[in-house]
Amino acid sequence: MKKSIDRKLAIYPHPALVVGTYDKQGNANMMTVAWAGICCSSPPCVAISVRKATYTYGNLIEQRAFTVNVPSVAQVRETDYFGIASGKNTDKISAVGMTPVKSKLVNAPYLDEFLVILECKVLHILEIGRHIQFVGEVLDAKADESILGQEGNPDMSKFKGILFAENQYFSFGESLAKAFSIGKEIK
Amino acid sequence: MKKSIDRKLAIYPHPALVVGTYDKQGNANMMTVAWAGICCSSPPCVAISVRKATYTYGNLIEQRAFTVNVPSVAQVRETDYFGIASGKNTDKISAVGMTPVKSKLVNAPYLDEFLVILECKVLHILEIGRHIQFVGEVLDAKADESILGQEGNPDMSKFKGILFAENQYFSFGESLAKAFSIGKEIK
Repeated sequence: MKKSIDRKLAIYPHPALVVGTYDKQGNANMMTVAWAGICCSSPPCVAISVRKATYTYGNLIEQRAFTVNVPSVAQVRETDYFGIASGKNTDKISAVGMTPVKSKLVNAPYLDEFLVILECKVLHILEIGRHIQFVGEVLDAKADESILGQEGNPDMSKFKGILFAENQYFSFGESLAKAFSIGKEIK
Repeated sequence: MKKSIDRKLAIYPHPALVVGTYDKQGNANMMTVAWAGICCSSPPCVAISVRKATYTYGNLIEQRAFTVNVPSVAQVRETDYFGIASGKNTDKISAVGMTPVKSKLVNAPYLDEFLVILECKVLHILEIGRHIQFVGEVLDAKADESILGQEGNPDMSKFKGILFAENQYFSFGESLAKAFSIGKEIK
């Protein structure tokens, strides 16, 4: 029996992504967003949504560039912190003791400690309501060699990703099935 | 040591969401999308991206409405099938033996077997490239009573969600930490 749960954004899972930007003075900032996802294969694009009140919003408008830092289980605490503290009054990167690196492709910083990074140029800005959506074209993605599989792609048995759902972080569980494959059992 | 993995959309996890639409003749269709996510809290909105070549694209343009059916581990096979077959030449819902239900709020069908449903009205259409993004306002969400926790929200220990990453479906793993909480350990 189904029951209304109001207008709840009941999508499971969400990613938790750490967005890196520079402010006008060139200070690096990181902010965690869960309202995000891939939105186009070609050009390869990701969408992140932020509120106007955030420090990251001003940086995105100014620089039109950002990085996406994809956390794994080792960075749960820092990922949560980047979503709580504000770059307006805190140097969040110093607080966690991580290492900002300037992207060579866009005017945005990433964190060396994260294992997967996307470097993005803002293509579209969509004012939806409380959140503004930034669509970023991925100019390059980088992964730590330690998590690459035989085909040169990130291997999820090595990466140990995290997901966000109902205000909790979870690890990835067991592999259930290959995509574009198990469904072929249905005629 | 980081290595370029080209312009790979290396965001982990993605959701795998089953999008329900009606065609002009009122036939229900389901299609799985992984390029999707939440994009605004108020109004509550989700974004799904589809290619123009899909049957769902035509239905979305025609009806300006869709449902999101959130799969759990029991529906992995069907979820994969809905991403492989096309509604142009297949009645996918009959093929899996599931039960379409007409939403009372929008002109779109959902599947009774899925435990979490969102009923959405198209607010924005953004042409990005190969994929067109549809931003849908959530008019109501519904969840099966069996997965609700004490506070009336879906309980992830009961829901058993799935995630999509590197062409595999995974279950949710163990709970790692409470969000907006563990990060407070960092000053």
